[in-house]
This record gives sequence, C-alpha cells and structure tokens, in this order.
Amino acid sequence: MKRRPGSVSLGLALFLAAMSCWSAALAEEKRAYPNMSKSADIVIKRGYSPEALKCIECHAKETPGIVAGWKEGRMAHAGVSCYDCHVVDASSPMASQCKGLKGTRIFTSPMVSPKTCARCHPTEVDQFSKSGHAKLASAPVVEKKKFKNLIYELEGGTFAGVPGESKLRLATRQSGCQMCHGAEVQLGPDRKPTNDSWPGGIGMRYPDGGVGNCVVCHNRHQFKISEARKPEACAKCHLGPDHPDIEIYYESSHGQIFLTDGENWKWDSAPDAWEPGDYTAPTCATCHMSGIGELNTTHNVNERLHWDLVHPKSVVRSGARGDGEKGRRLMRKVCANCHSTLHIDNHFAKLDRAVELYNFYFDKATAMIDTLKAKRLLKADPWKDPAQELHYYLWHHTGRRARHGAAMDGPDYAHWHGFFQIFQVYKDIEDIYNYRLKHNEIEELSPVMSTGPL
Amino acid sequence: MKRRPGSVSLGLALFLAAMSCWSAALAEEKRAYPNMSKSADIVIKRGYSPEALKCIECHAKETPGIVAGWKEGRMAHAGVSCYDCHVVDASSPMASQCKGLKGTRIFTSPMVSPKTCARCHPTEVDQFSKSGHAKLASAPVVEKKKFKNLIYELEGGTFAGVPGESKLRLATRQSGCQMCHGAEVQLGPDRKPTNDSWPGGIGMRYPDGGVGNCVVCHNRHQFKISEARKPEACAKCHLGPDHPDIEIYYESSHGQIFLTDGENWKWDSAPDAWEPGDYTAPTCATCHMSGIGELNTTHNVNERLHWDLVHPKSVVRSGARGDGEKGRRLMRKVCANCHSTLHIDNHFAKLDRAVELYNFYFDKATAMIDTLKAKRLLKADPWKDPAQELHYYLWHHTGRRARHGAAMDGPDYAHWHGFFQIFQVYKDIEDIYNYRLKHNEIEELSPVMSTGPL
Amino acid sequence: MKRRPGSVSLGLALFLAAMSCWSAALAEEKRAYPNMSKSADIVIKRGYSPEALKCIECHAKETPGIVAGWKEGRMAHAGVSCYDCHVVDASSPMASQCKGLKGTRIFTSPMVSPKTCARCHPTEVDQFSKSGHAKLASAPVVEKKKFKNLIYELEGGTFAGVPGESKLRLATRQSGCQMCHGAEVQLGPDRKPTNDSWPGGIGMRYPDGGVGNCVVCHNRHQFKISEARKPEACAKCHLGPDHPDIEIYYESSHGQIFLTDGENWKWDSAPDAWEPGDYTAPTCATCHMSGIGELNTTHNVNERLHWDLVHPKSVVRSGARGDGEKGRRLMRKVCANCHSTLHIDNHFAKLDRAVELYNFYFDKATAMIDTLKAKRLLKADPWKDPAQELHYYLWHHTGRRARHGAAMDGPDYAHWHGFFQIFQVYKDIEDIYNYRLKHNEIEELSPVMSTGPL
Repeated sequence: MKRRPGSVSLGLALFLAAMSCWSAALAEEKRAYPNMSKSADIVIKRGYSPEALKCIECHAKETPGIVAGWKEGRMAHAGVSCYDCHVVDASSPMASQCKGLKGTRIFTSPMVSPKTCARCHPTEVDQFSKSGHAKLASAPVVEKKKFKNLIYELEGGTFAGVPGESKLRLATRQSGCQMCHGAEVQLGPDRKPTNDSWPGGIGMRYPDGGVGNCVVCHNRHQFKISEARKPEACAKCHLGPDHPDIEIYYESSHGQIFLTDGENWKWDSAPDAWEPGDYTAPTCATCHMSGIGELNTTHNVNERLHWDLVHPKSVVRSGARGDGEKGRRLMRKVCANCHSTLHIDNHFAKLDRAVELYNFYFDKATAMIDTLKAKRLLKADPWKDPAQELHYYLWHHTGRRARHGAAMDGPDYAHWHGFFQIFQVYKDIEDIYNYRLKHNEIEELSPVMSTGPL
Repeated sequence: MKRRPGSVSLGLALFLAAMSCWSAALAEEKRAYPNMSKSADIVIKRGYSPEALKCIECHAKETPGIVAGWKEGRMAHAGVSCYDCHVVDASSPMASQCKGLKGTRIFTSPMVSPKTCARCHPTEVDQFSKSGHAKLASAPVVEKKKFKNLIYELEGGTFAGVPGESKLRLATRQSGCQMCHGAEVQLGPDRKPTNDSWPGGIGMRYPDGGVGNCVVCHNRHQFKISEARKPEACAKCHLGPDHPDIEIYYESSHGQIFLTDGENWKWDSAPDAWEPGDYTAPTCATCHMSGIGELNTTHNVNERLHWDLVHPKSVVRSGARGDGEKGRRLMRKVCANCHSTLHIDNHFAKLDRAVELYNFYFDKATAMIDTLKAKRLLKADPWKDPAQELHYYLWHHTGRRARHGAAMDGPDYAHWHGFFQIFQVYKDIEDIYNYRLKHNEIEELSPVMSTGPL
Repeated sequence: MKRRPGSVSLGLALFLAAMSCWSAALAEEKRAYPNMSKSADIVIKRGYSPEALKCIECHAKETPGIVAGWKEGRMAHAGVSCYDCHVVDASSPMASQCKGLKGTRIFTSPMVSPKTCARCHPTEVDQFSKSGHAKLASAPVVEKKKFKNLIYELEGGTFAGVPGESKLRLATRQSGCQMCHGAEVQLGPDRKPTNDSWPGGIGMRYPDGGVGNCVVCHNRHQFKISEARKPEACAKCHLGPDHPDIEIYYESSHGQIFLTDGENWKWDSAPDAWEPGDYTAPTCATCHMSGIGELNTTHNVNERLHWDLVHPKSVVRSGARGDGEKGRRLMRKVCANCHSTLHIDNHFAKLDRAVELYNFYFDKATAMIDTLKAKRLLKADPWKDPAQELHYYLWHHTGRRARHGAAMDGPDYAHWHGFFQIFQVYKDIEDIYNYRLKHNEIEELSPVMSTGPL
C-alpha cells in the first residue's frame, strides 16, 4: 500500500498561499484526469500516487460502477486503490497488462490472490488457510483423481454421449461446481485466466500459490464488514438441496429475529467491538467467526464445530477436520452470551441425538448396499441404480438437511426435508434390497428415477 | 409487576441536595452491581426493586445478550424485568432456582407460561386460548392416542429397526414436530424441564396448566410489536412443503409491496392504532389478527376464517374450528379497507371454486383408496405403499398448497406446487388402482417411491 | 388529467382577505367532504376538480387504504387522481358506474388499460407492447387453439372426470395461469369484468383493446419507481420450478450485494438518472430495462437478450423474439459499467457453452421420443407416460433452470436444480426407451410418476 504524504495538511499561517497553489495544482490534475470531475477533488486530497490516479481515472470512465462502489467502501477510506491490489511484479506468473498500461513497465492482474490480501491482513488469511474454506473447498474440483467418486457426483453422473475430451464437459463445472468450490486458474498466452477456469468460488487456487477468494464474502469493491456479517453473505453457497443453511437460519428463532429486527442493528461496529446489543440475535458470522464475549474473531470456520455434519457418516471432528471437543467448548461460549446453561445443554442433547439417529439409518442403509455389492446386485452405472442413487441422497441431501436442521434449530428442515425423507428413502432402499435378494437379480426397469428427494 | 416509587422525581427546590444524595446512592449501587456500568444509571432511575436489580446485574454478566435485548424492548420500557415474569411461587410445580438464588426463598422458572403473561395481557391470552394455536397445536404431539394416524405421519413412518423404547425415537420430535407444534413439558428432579420436552413451539403445555408460547411470535426479550406484525414472525412455522404460507405471501401482490416498500412503513404504531397508511399492503397479522377499520385486534387466528383448508377435506368452519360464515364476513371487512366489492367478490369466488375442485379430486382419490382397502389391496405399511403415500401427499402437501395458494393469491403455488401436482398425483393413484384391480394383487416392486411431491 | 387553476396562489397584498375567503371555502368543502379531515386541506390546495374530489372523498371513507397509498405515491404528487385514470367515456365497452356515480353521466371502470396509461406514458407503453410481456404473455391462456399443447401443460393435464363444460375447469386458470400470464377480460351485463376473467397478470387484454397490465410491476396506488427497480417486483412471476429467476438472482453475487447492501442504495433517482453509485450491484431492472451508461431505459424486456432460454430448444433470438445479436451487444454494454472485457467474455463463453450442452441433451432426448412415437410406443395420455413427462420436465423445468442459472450466475440452480437433474432425467428417459424398444411394448406399470423434478 503506497501513499504519498498529504500535501494539503498545512498550518493556518500558510493557508491562503497554499490554497492558491493547491487550486492551481488541482486545476492541472483535472486537466489530466477529466473524467474524475467532483470525485477528483476528494481523491487528490487523499494523496494517491500519479500511477494510482491514472488507474482510478481510466476506470472511472471505463467501468464507472467499480469506482463508484470503491469510493463508498472500506478500501478507499483507508487510501487503498486499484494500484495497491492489482499491480503485480513483472516476474509474477500472472503478470499481464490492461490496455491502459501497454508500453509501460507496470504489470497487473485481474485476479487478486490472498497472498496480496495477506500483506495487510496476515492473521485473517492465516486463519482462513487452516479452514475447510481453503484447499479443501476446491479439492473436489481440482484434485479429480483423489475425489473420483465425488467428482462423479458433482458432475451428476457420466456425460452420456459427450466425447471424453469435449469442452462441453466443462459447462457444468464452469456454471456450477467451480462457482462455489473454486478451481485452479489456468493462464492463457497473455497470462490472463482462461475463460473456463476463472472466476470461481472460495477455494480458488491462483498461479502465485495463493489459495482462497476473499471477495466471495467481502464483495469487491466495497469490502464492507457489514456485508460479511449478514447471513446473505454466506447464502451464496450455503443454500439449496444439499446444505440449505440459509433456509434453516431463516426459519430458526435467530433468523426470525434477524428478519424482523435486523434493519435496526448496528452492523458496522469495529471488527473486535461487535457484540450483543449491536444485534439481538446472531447471524452465521456471529456464531462461527465473530469475536463475542471472551472469544476472538476467527476466519477459521471449523474452529467452533463439534460434529462433521458434511460427510456420509458424522463423527466428532479431529485431525485435519479440526478439534471437535474444543469446538463444542467454544460454541457453548458463543451460546452463553444469551442462553442459560440449561438451554444450551438441551440444544446440544437434541443435536447429538439427531446425529445418532441419522448415523443409525446411514449404517443400516450402507450395510444393505454393501451386501448387494458383494452379491453383484448393484448396477454398473450408479446413476441408473436407484439403490445407489437413494443411498447418495440419504447422506448428501436428506441426511445433511436433518443434521444441519437440528444443529441450527430449523424444524421444517430437520423434519420435512430431513428425517421424514430419510425414513422414506430408507424404506425404498429396503424394498429394492429385498427384491434383489429374493430374485437374485436386478429389476429390469427400476422403480425410482430421476426425481430424487431434491 | 412490582415497582418502587421513583426516588428522583424531585421539585426544583430540592434539586441540588437531592442530586448529591442520589449520586451517593448511585455510587453505592454501582459498587453493588459493578457489571451494570452505564446501563445501571438508567435502570436505577426507573426504580426496580433490589431483587429485580440483582437479576439484571447478574444476567448482565452471565448472559449479556439477554439484558441488551431486553433494554431495547417493550418490557424494559414498561418497567417489567426478569423478576416480574420468571419468579414463581415456591409452591409452583416448576419452581426451581438459578445459581444466583441458591439459599434464598425466591424461586424462578426458565419457562414463562401464558398464565404469567395473562397477568398483564388477559384479553390476548384469552383470545389466543380459543384459537387453533393453543391446545390444538400441540395435540398431535401430546395426545398420541387420539392422533395415532397423524403422529404416524408426523414421525414419517415407523422407525424401522429402532427399539420401541429407545430415546432415539424422540430425535425427530425434538428437532422437528415439537419445535413448531409444542409439547407437554416434563420436569426433572430439579423441577426444570427435561432436555427432550423443552423448548418447543406455540402449543406448549406447562406444568402450571398454562397452554401456549407467546414468545414464538413476540421473541424474548425485546417483545417488539413490530416483530409480530412482520410476516417473518409467522414464517418460522408457516412455511415449507405442507403449508408454504410465507412463500405464497411473498409471491402475492401483498408480499411484493411489502418486500419493495415495507422498509418505509410505520411498524410501531400503538396496538389499536395501526391502520392503512402506516402500511400500503397487509401482512399476515393485518388480515388475521390486527385491528383494522371497524375490526378489533384479535389473538384468535381462526376468527376471520371461512374454510378449513388444513384438513383432508375442506369444509366451512363450524364448532371447535370456528364460525366460518362469520369468518367470511369479518375477512371481507378487512379486504374492504383497500378493495372494491367487485374485487372482493371475485377473489372469494376464485377461492371457493379452487376449494371445490380440490375436494372433487380428494373425494375421487379417497374412493379409490377405500375400494382398494375393501378388496385388501393396500399394503400393511402405508409408507411402503405408493397408493397410500400419494393419497397423503394429495391432501397434506399438494392439496394444501393449491388451497392456500388460491386463498392468498400466490399463483405459482396454486398452480405448479398445487393443482399441477394434484393432477399428476391423482393420475398415479389411478394407475396403481387400475393395476391392482386388474390383477387382484399388489405389484411386487412399487413404481413410486420416497421422493414424494415435496 | 384535468386540474383547475390553483385558487390560493395569491400575492402578498391580498393575503389576509384571501385567507379569510379560503378558510370559508375550506370550511364549506369540509362540510361537503367530512371524511377528508386533514388530508382535505392538502388536496384542496392542489386544486382537484369537484368531481375528482368526490371520488377521493368517497373512497377515503369506503376504501381508506387505497387513498392512503395514493397520497404517498407518485400520481398524487403529480396531481393525478382516481378521476383521471378510472373515468371512461360513456361509449367505452367497459363503461360502468360505481355506486357513488349512479344517476350521473360520469362512467368509470375498475380496470385501467394501458391505453389510459399511454396518455401520459406513450413511449413506455409502446416499448412494452413490443415485448414478450404483452400479447405473447397471455397468448397461452387466451389463444387456446394455437397453444393446444401448451395449454395442456399449463392446466397440468386433462381434468380426469370433470365434465367438459364445468366451471370447475376454470379454477386452475383463475388461481394460477391467469394471475401471471393474464387473460382476456369478459364483461358481465353491468359491463364490469366477470369474476373468472379478472384480475390477472401482465398480458391482460382489455375490452378497449389495450394489452398489458402496468400495475403488475408498478403496484397501485403508489406507483413507486423504487418498487419496479427492486428485484421483488419481478419475483411475483419470475420464480418457482420453471423459471426461478429471483432464486437465481439471490444466489448470484449481484443478489448477495443487493441483499446485504441494498438498504443503503438510492432507489428513487429520476428515471433517466439512476446509475452505478446509486447502487453497487444491478437488480433485474438494471440489466434488462433501466438506462445505464449510454443505454436508454426500455420497457421492452426482450431488447437486451441474446438467447431464447424459454422455449424447448435454445436459439439466438430473431424475428418476433427480438434481435439476438443486437441483444448481446446491448447487454455487454450493461456489464461494461462494472466489469472488464475479460470478465464479460468469460461470462458469455460460460453461458454459451451451457446452452450448447443443454441443447445437446435436449436433441438426444427428443430423438428418443420421436423414435418411440414412430414405433407407437408412447402412451396416449402424456401425463401418464413417464417418457413424455420427463421430456417435458427436461426442457420446461430442469433445462430452464440450468440455462437461467448459467445466464445469471446462480451456481446452485445451474448445477443442482439444473444440469444435475438434466443428467438424471436423461438417463431415465433412456431406460424407458431401451425397455420399450427391447420388448416392443409399453411397460404395464410405469416406473416414474407424479413427483417430477420440481
């Protein structure tokens, strides 16, 4: 972040003379940057370098919406401009030039990697890097071999009839998976990202080695802290059939209070000074990331979690997934800001029991699938085999909904989209299982099809 | 509600002397209540009793979020504090003690029953008690014998393989049913609620005989009237596949106006002074509960209803379900605040015809099920029998969506999630019916499965 | 729009005398219009005609909500009142009289056709008339013969058992289709609309020849420009299983910024002065209708579109559907206000590839259906034939979700509700296709049923 010293912080004695000089300088700069009009006055006083001003000036004309947003936001208030985040060293693998820079020795990138963000926010990037939001997020998209089965799922099954090397196979990744999970940026000959590897979601992997995409939650170019504190910042990805977290939040008492009273809350308190009273119910950030009571802010969203509610069978987090015992202790401290020990105990007893019930059905369903497999009674294409499809829906869709619903007190999701469907899915697997074992063959035309419990 | 007389309402003549005394008193109280800091100044002037202050002081430290919310809310403004609602008589079946009260003769309960609320709000509690929101709401959860079939449905079918007395069977009730419907509180040896019977939804039944849970709509500890007036207060329960009332509202013209203009409305008018002009479209509360024009506010949500749109076959309300003829008259008076007689006539003609069409299909589907039953062509487990499952979805899911969609002008729900699906469900029941009659046996592997038209 | 000259714009010299006269006149008018109370003072000063005042006066009593909304809105500020829009010529086919006008020679209609709106807003109505929002919108409801197959779909299949001429058949149209698509108004003997042909959606056809329904987006009687700029104005119709545009918007980065920051935006800039900076992300209106940069505002929503993403197979728009090449150029100009050429290129490359992949599956699925048809292996009732039902879901539901999701950057819809389901639906059609070809007959009890991938 480069700033030149403020040229107009003058003592009163020099005021008139200075005003005269400054006006002349301003008039001159306005000739140089005719598009900046009124904004220029403000910007110039802040003391950006001539190079930074050229970026701002040109983009005020080329992409006025970006400059307008930036002017309202945190970065501009701190004197951080285009130049500070987008200029890269000539030796950077992603060093390119916008048309305004052609012929100069300044290089930029349309991409800003967390390595750049870490220059001013090292703690946040470090915490983030240890979370499931970093490498783990994009692993299913990037490390295809490791996640062969999962990629299969992400891509919704084989591409019937699409040639193996066809670019068409990228269409779903580009418009779907990668937009939340992230991808590994590929560079074209101009060292700009190719059109199928960028942009993407939270786990982006950049050519400079940076992993993560801060603007997913802190949208450019305002970077408002109020945005990241609101549930909708998380809802871009945490929604839908497989992890309807925003839907669950909205139907919880917490969400009900947010939706009916949030417009009155103080959303822009300083990072370590946001506390109950500024709000009267927590948002996603409050419980999972924000400082509250004696807890510090963290960008490691795994830190306060006890259970792994994402994978097929739920276990207490350990190892790479975090420390589940510590997670429970920390989350209880969050709850304790507003709830009695009795209330907290009851909540977690409910969650633990829901997880146990889910695991019970998952284990029984998995045992049936294993038996069918051993007896060669599974179809080769799992996406044409209702037994395998339903098993997938059991954990990935209905099972997550039941578990997340119980964890965040969304009764409609815990029940109707969760356990109610788990029961039906389980019974349908059972019917197929019984039929195949009885006849020792797979039914010719399978009874359950594409609809799935979405 | 106990308050001590204000000690600082002094005449001007005594001002300086009093200020001195009061400052000293305040300093002394601050020593006693060190956590109250600035809040204490305000609180003490209000004149809470020493016992009430002790509650506030301790909870400002132990659960600061509760105290922060309370300070912003209606109760604090009226001088009502923890003590007034949570202290119970020593003889109360739910008399327990928080750790701050151990050794004293003061007893409290974490639960506040409507019997307590009725001390200041007798009319509201009385109206509420006559509505479907009271005993009827929790009947399916509590009165299992009466609602054997419904409980079956609520629990999503039998628990395949879960032992009959296993606590696991409570998991779905705890995280699902009870959170909206309510439950009957069971007490532990400490006379506090057990962790599987509390908290719960609107029809809670308390050990003191109180029925209802006011904080479901008036969240503690702010109890804002603006909250209960907003549609999201109702949306905690009135959503989802079986009664998507918030979804329907949002897609109605009423909801469209609320969503685009509601931020400009006057939400905090006095209870009997909220009227068109304060808002430019109604919310759930406006039509079903609020005073408007010549109508008084009511907490009996059944009062303005004509049809019973919840049960399998829709009939005009009578008896315990209300007076449907009166309901139509009252609701028309609501509409008449903004709509012409022509518009109102057209709306109800549309609703009545939609109900008639739904009933037509319901009757025909029910006749098929009855025939199959008479011919012993139904499976023993209804959740493995598509004929019975589809019949359930017909009335409980698609049928309610069509009827509620028509009642509140949500065309997407009336059509796509409603009648469009009713037609498909009906035809599928018909296919199964024809197959079973023709072969005089139940198909070996049934064609429809777990997905349901959710 | 008739206004009488302002009677109280007096010079200072005449002030006292005039005040006296005016007070007397006001007192007299108040006697005539006792319901107007304080509002009357304002209204009278504005100088409405006596006839207009009678309307306002009577409706302030009869339908106070309408008058309260109108007072807050644009029309009242411009001096436009009930009289100006609802009074029609005695010769109008829809000339009727409200009870207040009985016996007079003034005729009104409860309906206001775009022909009336065009008196002051001719450009907007003209642009609108050329869009798919006008005649095309209500064509499926009104021109049944042309859209025989589509009407079938809109009505969800045949009405099993409902007599052909039964009024019951109108129930779904009235509560569903017509409320978004519009209808052709039928008049009763009193020349007021019949209760099954009015009200309705955006493509309404009025007896005076006007087509369109402006209040669908500019709700009466406030007609706020801020409403039409908010995404929820479009969401009344653009939602749900077949075109979940609001859901996609909310999960896009644009929607995320709107949801977290929109409360701070300037929503009421003048029609041709709303620009980036007033907002920091676009809404539906911004991209599809509003003036931005060098583009003028348009009420032809087709103007900036490249693809037809609504019909079974996507083609570049031409002829009656618009000019797709021009559409792409215009939309790129919208994007360019905030995005680099690289970003815009990448976005449209992604969209074009997604459309290509969708078309690939649509063509293959259609070929299977065609083969089955040629071999007489389709059922007569398409709504009992999973092959035909799934083919319909492929394009009308999952296919639109994938395409719209890719177009507006909603990854959850592009993937889970889109391509993921397209793959399953495709495979299921394939299974049925293979079975029928192999056995040269239709399966007796079909494997997929009513649920559909809704």
